[in-house]
Amino acid sequence: MEKIVEQTLLYDFYGELLTEHQRRIYEDVVLNDYSLSEVAEDLEISRQGVHDNVKRCGKILQDYEDKLHLVEKFVSIKEKIHRIRELTGHCEAMSKQELVTEVEHISQEILEEL
Amino acid sequence: MEKIVEQTLLYDFYGELLTEHQRRIYEDVVLNDYSLSEVAEDLEISRQGVHDNVKRCGKILQDYEDKLHLVEKFVSIKEKIHRIRELTGHCEAMSKQELVTEVEHISQEILEEL
Repeated sequence: MEKIVEQTLLYDFYGELLTEHQRRIYEDVVLNDYSLSEVAEDLEISRQGVHDNVKRCGKILQDYEDKLHLVEKFVSIKEKIHRIRELTGHCEAMSKQELVTEVEHISQEILEEL
Repeated sequence: MEKIVEQTLLYDFYGELLTEHQRRIYEDVVLNDYSLSEVAEDLEISRQGVHDNVKRCGKILQDYEDKLHLVEKFVSIKEKIHRIRELTGHCEAMSKQELVTEVEHISQEILEEL
């Protein structure tokens, strides 16, 4: 997965577990792509302070994922829903019964992950 | 939702964020339904200590859910997957196109939650 996509997902899932201060810094630097210097000036802290904070937040978010694996689960479910939609979007050559069998198979896989 | 189902779900999702000691107590009392006295004796702590621990764990798990809403999200997705399976399991009276439309509608709803 691309690093920015992964960082965004981790933040979407676990961002609420950071402090407001941490969220602000992480959003500005990682999601909104401001430079460390810009954020440092804006928050009146050192550039190094911003850098350390972003690094610490990244580690906190990754630690939650390493324990809970919810982003991983979510990505896997999303991929399977897209497979169902691939089927329904391109089923001209399939019979209704074939479609039913395929959708049931994938939806069963999803239930096993939930 | 039934309380035990809710407690089990919260524990499934966030249990890894408890300490090993907390997990042991919570599992024994809430999931395996041992009495406070049994667990107290087993772990050589007071009955009150077991009680307080279970209560504290319940609050920790609920606090995570209040912030992250991931159990809520996954329950909602699970319910929609079951709706898809209801459709595929009882689609004798539907045309293939009707089935496709319904499955696409529900799967779109799921993607919007993911």
